[in-house]
Amino acid sequence: MPVPTMVLAGRGLRSPRRKGESTPRQGPLAAALADLGCAALLIVSQSADDPDLAAFLASEVHLGQSLLVAPRGAPARLAYLVAMERDEAAGTGLPLVTPAELEVLRAAAEAAEPPAFLAWVVERALDRCGVPPGRVALAGHGPAGVVHAACSALARAGWTWVPGNDLVLLLRKRKTAAELAAIRHSAAATCDALLATARLLAVAVSRDGELWLEGERLTVGRLRTAMAGLLAARGCEQPRGNIVAPGEQGGVPHSAGTPERVLRPGESLVVDLFPRSRMFADCTRTFCVGRPSEPLVRAHAAVTAALAGARKGAVAGARGWDLQEAVCGLFAARGYPTPISHPGGTSGYVHNLGHGVGFELHELPLFRKAAGAEGVLAAGDVFTLEPGLYDPAAGFGVRLEDLVHLGPGGLETLTPLPYALDPREWEG
Amino acid sequence: MPVPTMVLAGRGLRSPRRKGESTPRQGPLAAALADLGCAALLIVSQSADDPDLAAFLASEVHLGQSLLVAPRGAPARLAYLVAMERDEAAGTGLPLVTPAELEVLRAAAEAAEPPAFLAWVVERALDRCGVPPGRVALAGHGPAGVVHAACSALARAGWTWVPGNDLVLLLRKRKTAAELAAIRHSAAATCDALLATARLLAVAVSRDGELWLEGERLTVGRLRTAMAGLLAARGCEQPRGNIVAPGEQGGVPHSAGTPERVLRPGESLVVDLFPRSRMFADCTRTFCVGRPSEPLVRAHAAVTAALAGARKGAVAGARGWDLQEAVCGLFAARGYPTPISHPGGTSGYVHNLGHGVGFELHELPLFRKAAGAEGVLAAGDVFTLEPGLYDPAAGFGVRLEDLVHLGPGGLETLTPLPYALDPREWEG
Repeated sequence: MPVPTMVLAGRGLRSPRRKGESTPRQGPLAAALADLGCAALLIVSQSADDPDLAAFLASEVHLGQSLLVAPRGAPARLAYLVAMERDEAAGTGLPLVTPAELEVLRAAAEAAEPPAFLAWVVERALDRCGVPPGRVALAGHGPAGVVHAACSALARAGWTWVPGNDLVLLLRKRKTAAELAAIRHSAAATCDALLATARLLAVAVSRDGELWLEGERLTVGRLRTAMAGLLAARGCEQPRGNIVAPGEQGGVPHSAGTPERVLRPGESLVVDLFPRSRMFADCTRTFCVGRPSEPLVRAHAAVTAALAGARKGAVAGARGWDLQEAVCGLFAARGYPTPISHPGGTSGYVHNLGHGVGFELHELPLFRKAAGAEGVLAAGDVFTLEPGLYDPAAGFGVRLEDLVHLGPGGLETLTPLPYALDPREWEG
Repeated sequence: MPVPTMVLAGRGLRSPRRKGESTPRQGPLAAALADLGCAALLIVSQSADDPDLAAFLASEVHLGQSLLVAPRGAPARLAYLVAMERDEAAGTGLPLVTPAELEVLRAAAEAAEPPAFLAWVVERALDRCGVPPGRVALAGHGPAGVVHAACSALARAGWTWVPGNDLVLLLRKRKTAAELAAIRHSAAATCDALLATARLLAVAVSRDGELWLEGERLTVGRLRTAMAGLLAARGCEQPRGNIVAPGEQGGVPHSAGTPERVLRPGESLVVDLFPRSRMFADCTRTFCVGRPSEPLVRAHAAVTAALAGARKGAVAGARGWDLQEAVCGLFAARGYPTPISHPGGTSGYVHNLGHGVGFELHELPLFRKAAGAEGVLAAGDVFTLEPGLYDPAAGFGVRLEDLVHLGPGGLETLTPLPYALDPREWEG
C-alpha cells in the first residue's frame, strides 16, 4: 500500500451529505462540552479506525492520520492530511478541512518533527473551525510522546486541554441503528463460526484418549483455521485473536490456547470469539466431547443458572455491579469462590460479568463497583453477560457468554446459540 | 472475552528467560537514551500489539494495558496491570513489575479517573525500576487526553518527558531474525493469496462485457472472500483491509474497491494485500483479463522497468529519496507526470516509491526527501518498492509492489511472484 509524497494538495472539496446519513452524537456532545466548560472537542487519530473518531462518522472509511474538530453547538469537521485521501474523506459526509487549509506543505518544511507537525495541524484545524485558544476537550489516540509534546507546546500558546476520552466513551455507549446493524453482522458471523465448531466436534471420534477428525488428531489449530475462514468469508477480522482453550488451558480465563494442542474426550473446551467487521461482537461457549467429569457438569450448571439470572436482571436502569454481585451470590451459594469472597483469586469465578462491545472490544457499560453513569445499563447499550468458573488445579474452565442489546422492548440476544456442553445437542 | 475485576493481585512472579530468547534492541537503546540525555525509556501501551512495545518483546503475547520501563543500561522491565494476565506477562521473558507492586488495588480506590490512574502506575513503575524523577523518553500509544493529562501531572512532580516515539521507530527499522521470520510468514501467505487470485482470473470467461466465473458474475467481493479465507487459514488478519480496485477504482491509489463491482475484460485490476500475522507484509500486483488498452500496456511496461531500476538501486547506504528521484526520472522520460514535475497531481506517478514494513504497515525506512538516518537503506531493513501509474480520466491504474529484505548478501525478494498483467501467464 503506497504512502503519499510530502508534496500535498487540497482541492477545497465540499462533500455533499449523502442521503440518509447524519453525523451521530452531535446533540449530546454539545451538552457534554458545556458541562466541561469546553469550546470544542478535538479528536486526534492515526486512522479512521480510531474508536473515538469512528463514533462521529456515519459510515466506515479508510483514512490515515486525521483530526476531528467539533466546536460546541456547531457541526463537526474532519481535517485530513493527505490529498490522496480526498475521496475517502468526502465519503464521511462531514464538512472537511483540506490539507491546503492546514498548510501541510509548509509544515513539512517548517515543522517536520512529529510533535511540531502535530501542533501545526492541530492549531490550524482549530483555527479553520473558528475555535480560538481556550479550553478544548482532547480525545482520540496517538503516539504518547508526540501527543504530549505537541499539546504541551500548544498549552504554552494558550490552549487548555481537558481530558476528553471519557466523554467520548460515554457518548459511544448508546449505539446508533447503523452501529447496531454492524454489530449484528459480526454477531451473526460469530454464531455461524461457533455452530460450525459444534458440527466438527459432534463428528469427532475418540481414540486412545484423543479426539480425531477425518483421519487426523483434532487440534486447537484445526478449529481455529475453520473458524477463521468462515469469519473472513463474512468480512470479519480477528484483530485481537480468539480463545480456543481446552482443559488446563481453559482453566485460566485469558489463556488463548496453543495451536498444536490435541483435544481430548471428557475435557472442557472454551471457545471465545471476538471478531469485528465495522464493529466488534463477542460470544463464548464451552464444549465437552464425551463424558464430562462431575465437577465440570456441576460448574456448567452453575454458569448456566448464573447467565439466566444475569439476563433477567439486565434491565434499563440496573447497575452492572448489581448484576455482578447477584452472580457472585449465586456462585457463593453453590460453594464457589468469587471476586467478592476471594479478591484476586484464580479459582472459581474470577472476573467481571460483562462489558460493553462496539467500536472497541471492551467499552461501556462497565460492570465495576466504582462506576457512575458509565455503569448503568440503558436502552441502546450493547454488552456481554459472561459468567464463568475456573479450576486451574483440576484443569477445566466453563464460560458462557451472550452478546445482548438492551432495546426498547427489553433484552435482545444477538448470539442466540445453545448452551449445551455436548456438541451433539447443538444439532436440529 | 472477560474483563478482570478491579480487585487485583500480583504474585511476584519472576519469569525464567526462555531458551534462545533475548530482549531485542537493548544495546542500541542505551546509546540512543544517552544521546537524548534520558535516564530511561517509558513505553505506555493499550495492548502488546502496540508497535513500540512489541519491538522489545521476544515473542507475541496477549496483554492489555501495560508499561515497559527501560532504564539506561539496565534490563527493561514489563509492568502489567491485571493479575489474570500473569502467565502472558511471564511469557514475554522480561523481568516483571506486578500489579501488587504498582498498587493497582489502591489506585482503583484513590485514583480511579483514567489520567490519575495512569499517572499512578507510571510513577510506581518508574520507581520500582529505580528511575527517579528526571528526563525520561516517552513512547508507545494511548488515549490522547489521558496521556497528556497524566504526563502533565507527573511533569509538575519533577518528570521531564522527551518525545521518544521516533527513537523507538528508528530502533525498529532493523529487524531481528525472529521478526524477519514472522514477516516471511505473512509474505508467503500474501503470495499464496495473489496466486490464487491469478488462478481464478485465468479461468474467468468474458460475456457481454463482464467477467463470469462458475456461472456467476465475478465481483471484487468474490475475489476478496477467496483471499480472506486463504489468509485466515495461514493465521493472517487484514486489520487495515486490502485493495481490490478494478478500472476507474484503481485509478486512485488508495481506493479500496467496492465489493459488488463486477470485473470487466480489458480493464486493469490492482490487488494490494497488506495482512499481518505477528508482523505485516505488503505486496501488489496488477492484472488484466482479456485485451489491455495500449495505454495500459505502456504504463505496465514503464512500471515494470521502474521496479527493476528501483531494485537495482536498493543497496545498503542508498537513500530512499534517491531511488524515488530515479523512478521519477524514468517515468518523466516516458512522458508521465511525477510528484517532482507535478506536485500534488493525481495523474501519472503520484505517490512515494516505498516504505518500511514490520510492526506497522508503514514504518522506516522512509523514501521522503526530508529524511536523515531514517531514510537511508541499511542491512536488516524490510521495505516495499512500489512504483505505479494512474490515469483517473482513462480509468486505470497499474502498481507493482515487491516486499524486500536488505540482507547481508544483498536484496532478497520476500514476494517472488510474476509481474505479468495476464493471469494466464502466471501459471506453470
